[in-house]
Amino acid sequence: MTDEAFQDFYPDELALCYGCGRLNEHGLHIQSRWDGDETVARFTPRPYHTAIPGTVYGGLIASLIDCHGTGTAAAAGYRAEGRELGSEPALRYVTASLKVDYLRPTPLGVELEVRGRVREVKERKVVVEAWLMANDEVCARGEVIAVRLPEGWR
Amino acid sequence: MTDEAFQDFYPDELALCYGCGRLNEHGLHIQSRWDGDETVARFTPRPYHTAIPGTVYGGLIASLIDCHGTGTAAAAGYRAEGRELGSEPALRYVTASLKVDYLRPTPLGVELEVRGRVREVKERKVVVEAWLMANDEVCARGEVIAVRLPEGWR
Repeated sequence: MTDEAFQDFYPDELALCYGCGRLNEHGLHIQSRWDGDETVARFTPRPYHTAIPGTVYGGLIASLIDCHGTGTAAAAGYRAEGRELGSEPALRYVTASLKVDYLRPTPLGVELEVRGRVREVKERKVVVEAWLMANDEVCARGEVIAVRLPEGWR
Repeated sequence: MTDEAFQDFYPDELALCYGCGRLNEHGLHIQSRWDGDETVARFTPRPYHTAIPGTVYGGLIASLIDCHGTGTAAAAGYRAEGRELGSEPALRYVTASLKVDYLRPTPLGVELEVRGRVREVKERKVVVEAWLMANDEVCARGEVIAVRLPEGWR
């Protein structure tokens, strides 16, 4: 697994996301990294991130998959162009569509692992398949369709 | 629109959800109500619930649709059985599947309205269509497949 997270390379003005922005002081600070051809993020929910007692809140699981998906999309975009993460112009993706299937209750109190695999990379769109594990068991599966933020977004 | 929210009737041990539990002191406290045959929840994101500057974080939008969906499912379950909200045995639903299409950036700084419509009510499953509006414009559309929590969950 690489040391630096994809989100470490987001330009400052794109690093404010509640889910994964390093500059959002209230946020979750989700960090995603390559692990071979897959990507991985690890996150331990706070005790209040609950739904039914003892289980993790589904909206948090959706948030983890969402930000890990757009982070993976950015990394895949750089890789497809043969560029270093963080090289200019910055690549940043937003979510067009998010789908999560909750397969079983996700236990609260353990570190979760979100993994991603790039399904499709086009010039303006990346499709990422993701799954969330707790105690080595897959608890949720998701898909993120991410679209590239146009350079003129500012 | 009715006065009391669906979530006001959740039994205490099922009112801890980060998204909509009235007993979660860190949570979002999403509240859903009937409005004719539709349901509605209103929520104003905090300034830090952002993604790209000026827009609302997609994971929060997913959370709003998720909890409004399961709340609508519970209300639909009671209605289908001709029972008052909160009558025993308590009906509570969890999310089996969540889908959100982000149609346009959702502006930060205004009250959002999430609306729901019941698509299907079966004994153990309710399907809810939902959409999120800001400034009278639909910014996201979603679907929640909610399944009834078995009485023996405790």
